[in-house]
Amino acid sequence: MAEYQAPLKDMRFVLKEVFNSEQEWADLPGLAGAVDMDTADAILEEAAKISNEVVGPLNREADEQGSSWNDGVVTAPEGFKEAYATFCEGGWNGLGGNPEYGGMGMPKTLTGHVEEMLQGASISFGLAPMLTAGACLSIDAHGSDEIKQKYLPNMYSGQWSGAMDLTEPHAGTDLGIIRTSAKENGDGSYTINGNKIFITWGEHDMAENIIHLVLARLPDAPKGPKGISMFLVPKIMVNDDGSLGERNGVSCGSIEKKMGIKGSATCVMNFDDAKGWLVGEPNQGLAAMFTMMNYERLVVGIQGLGAAERSWQSAIEYARERLQSRAPTGAVAPEKAADPIIVHPDVRRMLLTMRAYTEGSRALNHYTAMWLDKSKFGEGEVQQHGEAMMALLTPVTKAFVTDKALDCTVMGQQVFGGHGYLREWGQEQLVRDVRITQIYEGTNGVQAMDLMGRKVVANGGKFVELFAEDINAFISSCGDEMAEFTGPLQAALATLQETTKTVVEQAKADPAIIGASAYDYLHQFGHVAHAYMWARMAQVAQQKMGSDSFYESKLAVARFFYARLLPQAKTHAENIQAGSEPLMALTADLF
Amino acid sequence: MAEYQAPLKDMRFVLKEVFNSEQEWADLPGLAGAVDMDTADAILEEAAKISNEVVGPLNREADEQGSSWNDGVVTAPEGFKEAYATFCEGGWNGLGGNPEYGGMGMPKTLTGHVEEMLQGASISFGLAPMLTAGACLSIDAHGSDEIKQKYLPNMYSGQWSGAMDLTEPHAGTDLGIIRTSAKENGDGSYTINGNKIFITWGEHDMAENIIHLVLARLPDAPKGPKGISMFLVPKIMVNDDGSLGERNGVSCGSIEKKMGIKGSATCVMNFDDAKGWLVGEPNQGLAAMFTMMNYERLVVGIQGLGAAERSWQSAIEYARERLQSRAPTGAVAPEKAADPIIVHPDVRRMLLTMRAYTEGSRALNHYTAMWLDKSKFGEGEVQQHGEAMMALLTPVTKAFVTDKALDCTVMGQQVFGGHGYLREWGQEQLVRDVRITQIYEGTNGVQAMDLMGRKVVANGGKFVELFAEDINAFISSCGDEMAEFTGPLQAALATLQETTKTVVEQAKADPAIIGASAYDYLHQFGHVAHAYMWARMAQVAQQKMGSDSFYESKLAVARFFYARLLPQAKTHAENIQAGSEPLMALTADLF
Repeated sequence: MAEYQAPLKDMRFVLKEVFNSEQEWADLPGLAGAVDMDTADAILEEAAKISNEVVGPLNREADEQGSSWNDGVVTAPEGFKEAYATFCEGGWNGLGGNPEYGGMGMPKTLTGHVEEMLQGASISFGLAPMLTAGACLSIDAHGSDEIKQKYLPNMYSGQWSGAMDLTEPHAGTDLGIIRTSAKENGDGSYTINGNKIFITWGEHDMAENIIHLVLARLPDAPKGPKGISMFLVPKIMVNDDGSLGERNGVSCGSIEKKMGIKGSATCVMNFDDAKGWLVGEPNQGLAAMFTMMNYERLVVGIQGLGAAERSWQSAIEYARERLQSRAPTGAVAPEKAADPIIVHPDVRRMLLTMRAYTEGSRALNHYTAMWLDKSKFGEGEVQQHGEAMMALLTPVTKAFVTDKALDCTVMGQQVFGGHGYLREWGQEQLVRDVRITQIYEGTNGVQAMDLMGRKVVANGGKFVELFAEDINAFISSCGDEMAEFTGPLQAALATLQETTKTVVEQAKADPAIIGASAYDYLHQFGHVAHAYMWARMAQVAQQKMGSDSFYESKLAVARFFYARLLPQAKTHAENIQAGSEPLMALTADLF
Repeated sequence: MAEYQAPLKDMRFVLKEVFNSEQEWADLPGLAGAVDMDTADAILEEAAKISNEVVGPLNREADEQGSSWNDGVVTAPEGFKEAYATFCEGGWNGLGGNPEYGGMGMPKTLTGHVEEMLQGASISFGLAPMLTAGACLSIDAHGSDEIKQKYLPNMYSGQWSGAMDLTEPHAGTDLGIIRTSAKENGDGSYTINGNKIFITWGEHDMAENIIHLVLARLPDAPKGPKGISMFLVPKIMVNDDGSLGERNGVSCGSIEKKMGIKGSATCVMNFDDAKGWLVGEPNQGLAAMFTMMNYERLVVGIQGLGAAERSWQSAIEYARERLQSRAPTGAVAPEKAADPIIVHPDVRRMLLTMRAYTEGSRALNHYTAMWLDKSKFGEGEVQQHGEAMMALLTPVTKAFVTDKALDCTVMGQQVFGGHGYLREWGQEQLVRDVRITQIYEGTNGVQAMDLMGRKVVANGGKFVELFAEDINAFISSCGDEMAEFTGPLQAALATLQETTKTVVEQAKADPAIIGASAYDYLHQFGHVAHAYMWARMAQVAQQKMGSDSFYESKLAVARFFYARLLPQAKTHAENIQAGSEPLMALTADLF
């Protein structure tokens, strides 16, 4: 298989040409002076080096070896500990962190691309920094100054890693029914008891301490989601002078045998009279955790993108080298026994579909990151606008991107024929690894419900109108030369607005309509969003045609997307118009 | 996970009610008296027992253990050898075999259901009888009487298994460029030299001999696909008296590490001065092999169906038991902490989609098998009609059924949330196992090309018209009460006919159009074929409403299919109308 190469040219195309991010950064008061394009370029270069040279080469063997558990001790696959040390030395854990506590304060429009490289190199490895960064976000947003002082600097340095302890055997999607308990000790600390499952990197040997954010219930807490609090529970107690003390009552009971991301440890965590500290207000734990979840959801989309990109890199190399049969239009390599398979239209269909969704996803992730930056570093209306758009787009970038990433990695494997089924080529690993991204941090079904319910119906489609305004403003800025894209984009947007209206209206009388429409709405929305991204990419490409064949190629992929992939949006709209009846007619016992 | 239970009621519904197979059998001269419904019923019962009780329970552990290789010796996972012996004792290997040589001569409309049970219980195990049956078919169709006498009885008994040696490292889809050589020895035998890869059960410890059918080139053979011959090469030489002699020059160099079907051995086979015998005419090897390939392709579709069914059985059980969140229409289990997840519309969407494609595929496989039976046991026009329909439908049942089987197993895994990603539940294994069915015996891209090129364009759409006639005859036989199905079916068929006409027309000028349309055409066709099957099932269900809630449930799934899945057919049609330009515009170097 091709070794992973961070797609720097494509990232810079998005960052500089499709979105003028340097200007965006300069316009945000909270970011003023923190980053310019030269700094960003240097960061991207360095991130590419560590991803390509340090992390990427470990990924295949880590899948074979897996993390291992022995009497509570978890050992990461060979090379992970050293790679993690190198990663920490580079200061990468704190890239997006709060500068007051040692972070670098970079915007998501930059850190998102760094994350793509890391996750493209290895999802199993990338999960450790991802969970740490997410935990830091929650602590920074909700922790007391004392807690931040005590934990954040060592987490930004990577010396201590972070973990997120939500799920219990009987409670995954429905966190309102968790049983882990917390009791106040009277000295500001709490005693935590309970069992958590699916705790990614909940235990390992790469960092000297692990800081758990644990959801638990206080004795007098109301039932359900409004009775959940968040606690910081270190694996090893931290003394007041910052040195490490004794082991806390936190232990790893076992690690799971999984379909993929085998290099990472998915832990069963036991809390036996563990000592913890409240982060945020009592009974506000779910809200506090969601600060982290929203961040994680964007990174999960980025994981999908990274895997799809890696699958593409191997597939295109193979399609150029593998000789099999002749082109339908006549031999192109008559001196050889057969033509390279890239000549076959159906192989091209797979390759172009991979490019269209992968590059569309990269642009969409950046677009969502842009709104996140506005919500974080902007002020007043800009900030509010950013928050609304980020809320709307987060479930789409998580779920649509990862659904398409599965399709892409399956196609990348298919291009290899029988060889794609063998482990040695790495393509099948990407399918297995990417499959988790559709499941964790809220299944894609949950994302679709979140989009349809909380982000669309709950506000009567107001956020969708903000999205439509942005697309319409773009369309208005285009000349006639863009008509081949803006026409279908306008039509696809109009259908999305119709669908939105239908569901908002029907939801008044039919409580099942949100769930019944959710999947199709998310996929209709995703296709419209990709159409918008491809129109923006095509606009840049048109303007630069002739300067570099790179732009010619972008324009061809944009046309392919509009001709062969966008039509699906209509089918999703039609499914939604069919209402909830076809899904709800059958009683549960007749299934 | 749920233990596999052969879906006998659904099979009998198809066999007896949707298709009146007993009448079909009675009408075929070549089958007269060979089978009636009582015999068939008894066979189904016994097959269910061995699948549920003997083979199914081995599947999960066989995946963990895998087949192993040691110095040329391949050992099947624990329990396989004993299960294979039990399977052979029951005479199952010869179920569809030629009675002249010890087979039972059963029609495909019966053996197909038996195969579904076996493959549903374990694809890894099922591959051994499948390859044996395929090899027997080729030998029976093309071998000399001497060869048939010598090999078939012991293969039908299962004492010897069969293998199919086509692929070489540089030649998979393109068998015309294989290098394995055969030289005449002057005594009727040939000396075979070369290396083959991807040889399923090419070596193992379950049978006392393995009969390889090997593609090789004679010294004076024309280049390309017209210079390939087929040879029978036993692992152990067979003496004239039928006893086993010395080991032939056939050895297993290694077995592959794969994504799935790990219980089965995928062998690298080396032929070093191995002794073989020509089967069929010199240079007609590909045609002879295709007798086997067509059979195998149908069984590959059945493998997909079996896996989808098994995934469904676990998913529905889990959806009824797993408690998580409340129904949007209000609590249905207020006494419990949460409602079973089957109440959620999006979970229902996944479950109904699984049912629709799985049960549609079962009917479609039976429908294809019916035409195969006519081609084999019929005479005159009936036989010719059968051959045409079987040729048309084979790539659809192979590729559409397995593509949908992947979707279904992914959904079956998704219903389990995070637990679906763990190996212990078995759902992820089904995804990994089923993935091979889209790749081997001709990738699904190759199937789509076969359909679009050889089965549609090559005859100007004549076979499609036969299919349309059959659907129209059905529609004419329906009353008004069927209008909710026959209306959309008629429309979907008309669009398929238009698409067919477009491609047939464009192919005259555009050599790339076949490959460019192939995937979408296959999926458009598959949806129309499923719509036809669901209309037939709905017709029976309507007639029997009230007698058993089974029929109520069928009708609801039929309605779901028409409302929420059939609309995709139009998108595929639209993609085809976009022509080959979007796929062919980009030059290979600009990808």
